[in-house]
Amino acid sequence: MEKKLRRSARLVDMTQHLLANPYRLIPLTLFAEEFGSAKSSISEDLSIIKELFEYKGIGVLKTVAGAAGGVKYIPMINRGLAVQVVEEICQRLEHPDRLLPGGYLYMSDILGDPEKLNKIGKIMATVFAEKEIDVVMTVETKGIPLAYATANYLNVPVVIVRRDSKVTEGSVVSINYVSGSSKRIQTMSLARRVLQENSRVLIIDDYMKAGGTVRGMVDLMKEFNAAVVGIGVFVEAAEVEERLVEDEEYISLARVSQLDMRDKEIKVVPGNFVNQIDF
Amino acid sequence: MEKKLRRSARLVDMTQHLLANPYRLIPLTLFAEEFGSAKSSISEDLSIIKELFEYKGIGVLKTVAGAAGGVKYIPMINRGLAVQVVEEICQRLEHPDRLLPGGYLYMSDILGDPEKLNKIGKIMATVFAEKEIDVVMTVETKGIPLAYATANYLNVPVVIVRRDSKVTEGSVVSINYVSGSSKRIQTMSLARRVLQENSRVLIIDDYMKAGGTVRGMVDLMKEFNAAVVGIGVFVEAAEVEERLVEDEEYISLARVSQLDMRDKEIKVVPGNFVNQIDF
Repeated sequence: MEKKLRRSARLVDMTQHLLANPYRLIPLTLFAEEFGSAKSSISEDLSIIKELFEYKGIGVLKTVAGAAGGVKYIPMINRGLAVQVVEEICQRLEHPDRLLPGGYLYMSDILGDPEKLNKIGKIMATVFAEKEIDVVMTVETKGIPLAYATANYLNVPVVIVRRDSKVTEGSVVSINYVSGSSKRIQTMSLARRVLQENSRVLIIDDYMKAGGTVRGMVDLMKEFNAAVVGIGVFVEAAEVEERLVEDEEYISLARVSQLDMRDKEIKVVPGNFVNQIDF
Repeated sequence: MEKKLRRSARLVDMTQHLLANPYRLIPLTLFAEEFGSAKSSISEDLSIIKELFEYKGIGVLKTVAGAAGGVKYIPMINRGLAVQVVEEICQRLEHPDRLLPGGYLYMSDILGDPEKLNKIGKIMATVFAEKEIDVVMTVETKGIPLAYATANYLNVPVVIVRRDSKVTEGSVVSINYVSGSSKRIQTMSLARRVLQENSRVLIIDDYMKAGGTVRGMVDLMKEFNAAVVGIGVFVEAAEVEERLVEDEEYISLARVSQLDMRDKEIKVVPGNFVNQIDF
């Protein structure tokens, strides 16, 4: 390969490698050896990638100096783009056809679309970027896609809490909790083996009304000596009589500020995530 | 920006844009306008990216000529790497601690790890790359992560079939099916609004024993006038008395060829996917 081509190929390879391995420290020698390049050329390339990633709002490259050093890609979405994504979602959520019995909103189409889901997951990952998360947790079923999209950008595993106690994965911890809106007693379970003690856990869910399910997950985590370091919900309902989760405990992307079942009027506004993004 | 830098930044941007938008036709003018470059320079860059993507087994760039033309990134994993990924998974699955009651295997750790999951999803996407898929379908709960990982590479939505009929998403189609292994009658449901008529559907599931669940999904699709154009399962059980899905109907990544509950001996081998990859 001629020299110019080699440099171009190296840039393409470094870009794809960084994007595919968020939050991993990649030693500069990896690229230097593969392309037979000096470390100084690699550093030059990295500064180009870094500049473009920041300019395009793709993320941050963190360089760690020294023998054990390297570079780490932190996926980020900038505030302007995040607000734009959320505002567009709010608008879509306001369509009267989305109204479901019990004051829920139909959101499966949005959470089923990989492009949208990736953007929402990236916003979550940006909000909780500094929390040193070990694992993302959710409860089946509708929260699972967003949990994965978020975990994908944080590059950590996902743990799924089951809504029954018929889990067959060995020793299981179950707790009963009260669903805040229906006031019914329900059960959630997690097998011992899926979560290490003392893990730092980010809880993700698609929808929060009174917060009973989220409170249940927080309580369940105590049984694993885990630290809940963040709670992110896609959409929260407003006008909840008695919220079981404190305002400062969770971040929401959108908030149903008004929901009139009779007149089919829905008003959805951006949630409290905006102040958590300074990229 | 000086000229060399501009070209480098353009390469980085084109790479990230292609990776983030699989299966989308991207007009060359998009890049040409953004960087004030001639289309010929863009074409040169694309050939560098194409070469590296193929060399590294990342995927294929398809160029469409003409005024409405552009370039499309098709994510692919090459056969050698795919076999390596699957063989490593087979080895991990053979650990006796994975044996669960009822002849199931513990796999939540593997399907909960985004890095592994992305590789498995990319293998699925490679196998079904030519099928012109509109939507990936799975049944809750354990198949959901893999369905999303696959759909992410195919850039199509995911539809999740529920295991009960208490779905609140409007008009619902429910069918009863017989679980092949337990012989019990069960129900699965899908809301009308989540799937358009005449869709081309790829069914994805994590585990298949007799295939009753998969058969149920196939039957359910008839109610939507949908065409099931592929069935991909992560792991299939061997020694099934009466399989409800024909051999040529599905692709599996791995196959439990031996499972001795008493002696805790598990043998897992690569499935029939290998012949489906010619990248």
